[in-house]
Amino acid sequence: MGRVTVRRPVRRISATGDRRRPDALAAEEPLELRVGGRALAVTMRTPGHDVELAQGFLLSEGVIGGREDIAAARYCDGVDDQGRNTYNVLDVALAPGVPPPDVGIERNFYTTSSCGVCGKAALDAVKLKTRFSPAAAPFAVKSETLAALPEALRAKQKVFASTGGLHAAALFTPDGEIDVVREDVGRHNAVDKVLGWAVMADRIPAPGHGLLVSGRASFELVQKAAMAGIGLLAAVSAPSSLAVELAEENGMTLIGFLRGESMNLYTGDHRVLT
Amino acid sequence: MGRVTVRRPVRRISATGDRRRPDALAAEEPLELRVGGRALAVTMRTPGHDVELAQGFLLSEGVIGGREDIAAARYCDGVDDQGRNTYNVLDVALAPGVPPPDVGIERNFYTTSSCGVCGKAALDAVKLKTRFSPAAAPFAVKSETLAALPEALRAKQKVFASTGGLHAAALFTPDGEIDVVREDVGRHNAVDKVLGWAVMADRIPAPGHGLLVSGRASFELVQKAAMAGIGLLAAVSAPSSLAVELAEENGMTLIGFLRGESMNLYTGDHRVLT
Repeated sequence: MGRVTVRRPVRRISATGDRRRPDALAAEEPLELRVGGRALAVTMRTPGHDVELAQGFLLSEGVIGGREDIAAARYCDGVDDQGRNTYNVLDVALAPGVPPPDVGIERNFYTTSSCGVCGKAALDAVKLKTRFSPAAAPFAVKSETLAALPEALRAKQKVFASTGGLHAAALFTPDGEIDVVREDVGRHNAVDKVLGWAVMADRIPAPGHGLLVSGRASFELVQKAAMAGIGLLAAVSAPSSLAVELAEENGMTLIGFLRGESMNLYTGDHRVLT
Repeated sequence: MGRVTVRRPVRRISATGDRRRPDALAAEEPLELRVGGRALAVTMRTPGHDVELAQGFLLSEGVIGGREDIAAARYCDGVDDQGRNTYNVLDVALAPGVPPPDVGIERNFYTTSSCGVCGKAALDAVKLKTRFSPAAAPFAVKSETLAALPEALRAKQKVFASTGGLHAAALFTPDGEIDVVREDVGRHNAVDKVLGWAVMADRIPAPGHGLLVSGRASFELVQKAAMAGIGLLAAVSAPSSLAVELAEENGMTLIGFLRGESMNLYTGDHRVLT
């Protein structure tokens, strides 16, 4: 199994000098995801929690709806040039009756609509694929509880603390308890890992959880929350235009710039109690 | 042509109050890239500089080596449900004799090596595809020139200033002049746009430029610099382990945590003059 940090020598130049010292880097390696032996996607990720990553990815893409759709997940025998298993190829067996995904799934996701590829097509595709209703999520949280979350997240980011190089995602309760935190060089991967945790814990749909991310809120992160039946996404940084549109269309709450004691509520502010 | 920012109402909660006001968001829309009429990739990007984005992407993927490999690039007639052109489908015609890319190019990129998919396979694939020698780039820059770059970049980030939501990339000279800056919701897109600018200006390979990015340095960003024949990549945030390995294998200079007056030199410190 890969390590999550790698030590390297570094030369640091600063106002106080120029010296060599060891440094910890966030590990990045490719993971090939296969379904039923067939290659589906390759992602650059931080090794660890790979089964969660795979299950969260398949949930996000609409291939599975929960734990019952997975029969097994195991590493393949990919070896490097020294004959060691790389643990970088993961094969998921779907449960009987679950249709395998189309290869080229990402491309198809946006191009099923009649208007060619456009923001609306992307929104429609999510609507088409979502099995759950994030709009119906009864989740509600106090603004002061939200305000305390980024600090709580940072305290749990073990690898970030040593490398400064990782995105984080977390699932939290209305009381502000953080149930799971995952870190990754890729922000989508960090979210897939926490959603995969929920899949494996048989907690999908997850209307009783909010999703917290350490960076920006893009269309694809809102999509992932929607696919998990989560009603609230809070981001430390800015959302994009399409992220806000998707949250609005799906009756979700989208919070951005969650920092210090302040936050921006873009959609669904009925879930935030003041 | 799409707008780069979108105005939305937002409710802002802070220590000083709770009020509604208009907010500017970074625009995000899908772009479908076609080559010779055939769909190659869909990326979520900030509209604008799409032809540069396409050409930089094709350079990064090894499909083209420079301007002479492109015959034409034009928007297709994709229309939305109100019959308006979305300007979200771009078709590139390659010059006669330039082989079209394999569809599924991203997947193939890492899986050509005998060791299955692993960090080494990814490194080897870049080596195989690079037409230029970033190791031979004579680029050299003073550390104090480097230290001034993030501030100069920030001053040129027009959309970030209004939205807080964009990544930036820039090409700079040994004198610290910034020749081009591009912003995008996706950090890979920002880099592809500046590389596409260099393609269109017939400045590929670009051994006389350094590449500056506003965020982290991942494997894929180092790969993009290598594919453009650029010898030095400087990032405001942390590099990943595989980014450092790739820079080292290709004789490139990789700088991280370029902030204030300090920086970390991970590889190739002969290009930084102190």
